[in-house]
Amino acid sequence: MKKSMGPQTWLFPTPALVVATYDGDGRPNAMTAAWGGICCSRPPAVAVSLREATYSYGNIVRRKAFTVNIASADQAAAVDYFGMVSGRNEDKFRSAGLTPVRSRRVEAPMVEEFPLVLECRLMETVHIGLHTQFIGEILDVMVDESVLDDRGMPVMEALRPIMYAPGIQQYFGVGEPLGKAFSLGRR
Amino acid sequence: MKKSMGPQTWLFPTPALVVATYDGDGRPNAMTAAWGGICCSRPPAVAVSLREATYSYGNIVRRKAFTVNIASADQAAAVDYFGMVSGRNEDKFRSAGLTPVRSRRVEAPMVEEFPLVLECRLMETVHIGLHTQFIGEILDVMVDESVLDDRGMPVMEALRPIMYAPGIQQYFGVGEPLGKAFSLGRR
Repeated sequence: MKKSMGPQTWLFPTPALVVATYDGDGRPNAMTAAWGGICCSRPPAVAVSLREATYSYGNIVRRKAFTVNIASADQAAAVDYFGMVSGRNEDKFRSAGLTPVRSRRVEAPMVEEFPLVLECRLMETVHIGLHTQFIGEILDVMVDESVLDDRGMPVMEALRPIMYAPGIQQYFGVGEPLGKAFSLGRR
Repeated sequence: MKKSMGPQTWLFPTPALVVATYDGDGRPNAMTAAWGGICCSRPPAVAVSLREATYSYGNIVRRKAFTVNIASADQAAAVDYFGMVSGRNEDKFRSAGLTPVRSRRVEAPMVEEFPLVLECRLMETVHIGLHTQFIGEILDVMVDESVLDDRGMPVMEALRPIMYAPGIQQYFGVGEPLGKAFSLGRR
């Protein structure tokens, strides 16, 4: 039996994306965004939604670039920290003890210690409401060799990405494999 | 050490969203979309990206409505099936043995057996490339009482949402709790 819970942003799983940018002075910043996901296969593109009040918002508008950094489960505290304070007041990379490395493709930093990074060129800006959606073309994906298999494919048990659960505001790891796509559904 | 893997749609976790619609004759259809996520808090909104070639695409354009259905881990085969065939040629609800129930709020069906459903009114259409993004305002969320706790909040261990891993094309369950957001990052 289903209950009406009202209009909620309850989507599961939701990612915990760390969006990294440079400000006008070239200072690196990083913030956590759970509102986002892949939005196109060709060109490969990712959408992240930010409030205009964030420091990162102005950085993306100015630089027309950002990176999306995927952390591993044991880096969840840093991910959460990046979502708690503003880069306007604090050098978040320094406070978190993480290293900003300049992307070779776009004017944005990458979180060196995180295993997977999407380097994005701002393609489109969609004003929705409290949040504005930035659509970035994925120009390259940088991945730690330690989370790739022999064929160069990401291994979930090594990458251990973080899932965010809206509503209950909790982080979870990845669980058991449930099966292969485009196969499991065949009868 | 990071390796450049080229432009890939590698974002983790990615959801396995079942988008349900009515066609022009009122026949229910459902398809699986991994390209999507929450995109705004106020109004609460969700984005799903579909190729124009899909049957659901025309349904959304016509009806200006869709639902986003979240399945539980043991329903992964149905989720995968919904992503494998077109509703143009097949009654997918019938083939999957699932029940379409009309939403009270929008002109779209819900998957009765899935534990959580977002009822969405089409707000905006963003043409990106191969995929077009439909942004839906979430008018209500219908949730099975069995996956809610005493306070009416979703319980991940009961809901057991499905994560999709692009690239390796595999489904995974939810794993261990990693901590509370807006708390874990405090030092």
